[in-house]
Amino acid sequence: MLERLGRLLSRARVRLVLWDGTALTSPDAGAATLVVRDRRTLMRILWDPELAFGDAYADGRVEVRGDLLGFLESSYVSWQDKPWRALGRAARFVGRRVGDLVGTRTDVQRHYDLGNDFYRLWLDDRLLYTCAYFERPQATLEEAQVAKMDHVCRKLRLRPGQTVIEAGCGWGALALHMARNYGVRVRAYNISREQIRHARARARAEGLDDRVEFVDADFRGIEGTADAFVSVGMLEHVGLANYAALGAVIDRCLDPVRGRGLLHFIGRDHMRPLNAWIRRRIFPGAYAPTLAQAVERVLEPAALSVLDVENLRRHYALTLDHWRRRFESAAGHVTAHFGERFVRTWRLYLAGSQAAFSTGVLQLFQVTFGRSADDAQPWTRASLYRERDEHAAL
Amino acid sequence: MLERLGRLLSRARVRLVLWDGTALTSPDAGAATLVVRDRRTLMRILWDPELAFGDAYADGRVEVRGDLLGFLESSYVSWQDKPWRALGRAARFVGRRVGDLVGTRTDVQRHYDLGNDFYRLWLDDRLLYTCAYFERPQATLEEAQVAKMDHVCRKLRLRPGQTVIEAGCGWGALALHMARNYGVRVRAYNISREQIRHARARARAEGLDDRVEFVDADFRGIEGTADAFVSVGMLEHVGLANYAALGAVIDRCLDPVRGRGLLHFIGRDHMRPLNAWIRRRIFPGAYAPTLAQAVERVLEPAALSVLDVENLRRHYALTLDHWRRRFESAAGHVTAHFGERFVRTWRLYLAGSQAAFSTGVLQLFQVTFGRSADDAQPWTRASLYRERDEHAAL
Repeated sequence: MLERLGRLLSRARVRLVLWDGTALTSPDAGAATLVVRDRRTLMRILWDPELAFGDAYADGRVEVRGDLLGFLESSYVSWQDKPWRALGRAARFVGRRVGDLVGTRTDVQRHYDLGNDFYRLWLDDRLLYTCAYFERPQATLEEAQVAKMDHVCRKLRLRPGQTVIEAGCGWGALALHMARNYGVRVRAYNISREQIRHARARARAEGLDDRVEFVDADFRGIEGTADAFVSVGMLEHVGLANYAALGAVIDRCLDPVRGRGLLHFIGRDHMRPLNAWIRRRIFPGAYAPTLAQAVERVLEPAALSVLDVENLRRHYALTLDHWRRRFESAAGHVTAHFGERFVRTWRLYLAGSQAAFSTGVLQLFQVTFGRSADDAQPWTRASLYRERDEHAAL
Repeated sequence: MLERLGRLLSRARVRLVLWDGTALTSPDAGAATLVVRDRRTLMRILWDPELAFGDAYADGRVEVRGDLLGFLESSYVSWQDKPWRALGRAARFVGRRVGDLVGTRTDVQRHYDLGNDFYRLWLDDRLLYTCAYFERPQATLEEAQVAKMDHVCRKLRLRPGQTVIEAGCGWGALALHMARNYGVRVRAYNISREQIRHARARARAEGLDDRVEFVDADFRGIEGTADAFVSVGMLEHVGLANYAALGAVIDRCLDPVRGRGLLHFIGRDHMRPLNAWIRRRIFPGAYAPTLAQAVERVLEPAALSVLDVENLRRHYALTLDHWRRRFESAAGHVTAHFGERFVRTWRLYLAGSQAAFSTGVLQLFQVTFGRSADDAQPWTRASLYRERDEHAAL
């Protein structure tokens, strides 16, 4: 067994220390030491790496000393090397991100009953829990989240007086931004009551509650029609089996000539289920589709035409880097409220997600779509890149 | 039968005149009159609309008086209306475009043995036989073809000294443009000997023959490695069964870390075979894939990541409008050389292709791809839209 571990380590570039003090170091070991506290944990990880590594890390039966992110990244890179899989598979647990929720009501409440105060500790001030858009990598997280919302609004070509349906609206930041800065009326859907309560309060405080309606329902409850449809970070929770139903809802609610929409979601370059630890412990039922799956199953049956796809993978790695650093700054506070196990779980979840995007295991797609023959689309995408002021619609 | 025709006409918005003078007019008939010369032709069109309409039009057994383009467009629109299919299907013959050829050598030679002089009559001065890119709709065809080449080169982030492999290079315009304006070395593949002869002569005349090599082979004959791969208007001729082989060639020839590429192809929003007339009379073996098919079958098995997709449908409708008008201006000359039947065939092919793009039956996708974890991609696409001068690499 030690021999097998030795081979694995030489690829993973990590130093391994066992319960009895045995240390195995590969020639080019990185800045991380993996400490396994007992034999049973080691056996479990070798047997079912995805689930066992995450659980053992959360329980403190495995510890990563030094550069956790670097360890996870090198595990991903090693794992992508086909002949060698075992320890690589152990790192697959991170194959999930941090999602704006839909899924079932129970799943959603589980993740969000943590309370808005928790998310305020490490998200931006508007509480966007999806990939930001860094026009420059030096931008602050706050700037990058506003830039993301503007980028989405420009892609949707929003004009004052138009109507928008948003599926999966989080704490309402995008819906409010669209109404405030683009003069549109928004109907936004969500199944997290905690989030909806917060979003409604913000709408009232800003005097936008006559233009933004927050509805407690998932996408199947969407009613009425609109000029534009938008969903940021929801598709991951819809489940492949429901993609056609989502497409039918979009088709039904969008204007038959000028309707257009945008899906922003975590995707992959290859079909592969999400890691077992994430599916069981973080986001039950979540799945990151390939671009082809999303296009074929959501848009094709609904007779919608892909106008633009942009891959923002690097932006999500950087967004997660901001979140993770803020989370670590608040770790003492979080520990006091939620305990050590909670902090370790979230540390692994955030670092693992960052590693998944930085190594290309996960991708982030923004897909803009419209009706097949709509000629209202501008000739080029240059207008997406004009100065912000020129776009102020109000 | 007349009753059935009457129903069809009321949807197709066309006036129909039969061999015996019988005229059927729908209430909102457009500016076109469809003249059918004999009963047998009518029966054939009702029986096998795709093939029979095209053949009858080419033979002069069917005539469209007035606005041919408008007739074809309204046929497409009607056909998209699901309850009514028959006359609509008759217009599907146009579901093909004007392609840069690959396919088998025989197919290619058949289309291109017409000679370069024929294409000079109606293509731009550099002989680009693929969709142009109109930064403004008022741009000339010449400007739009140069803008297309620059748009492709920017998406590929070409830098002086880099190497490019081009699959399906037509008369060599893009290969020469890349070498001349971006300082790269190009190996370009084609199986039309007429085109290669022309391309090599141009390379010599411009003193670029030390930097651009034209190879007489299809994509399966591609050898060596490169920083970038590009293919404009070839995928339509590859055939679904060969997509994985194309992906493997791209994977093999591209740099494993920084390699990137671009596929420019005619696609569809739905899976559907090309029209029988086009497949038999214009481009044997051609197929327009959905975006999902291209991504899933070419890129996914090759571990390539989609970075950017742009739909240039409207640009192809406008490109075809330019070609069609130039073709009609030269129709007398073409008739003198090739005869009436040839002119009618090409008239229908060009007008039908334009109608297919203007009504959204066909789409044009530019897909940019790279390695899953390559961080050399710029943070935003803004650099694609800077002034032309800033991009001059030499």
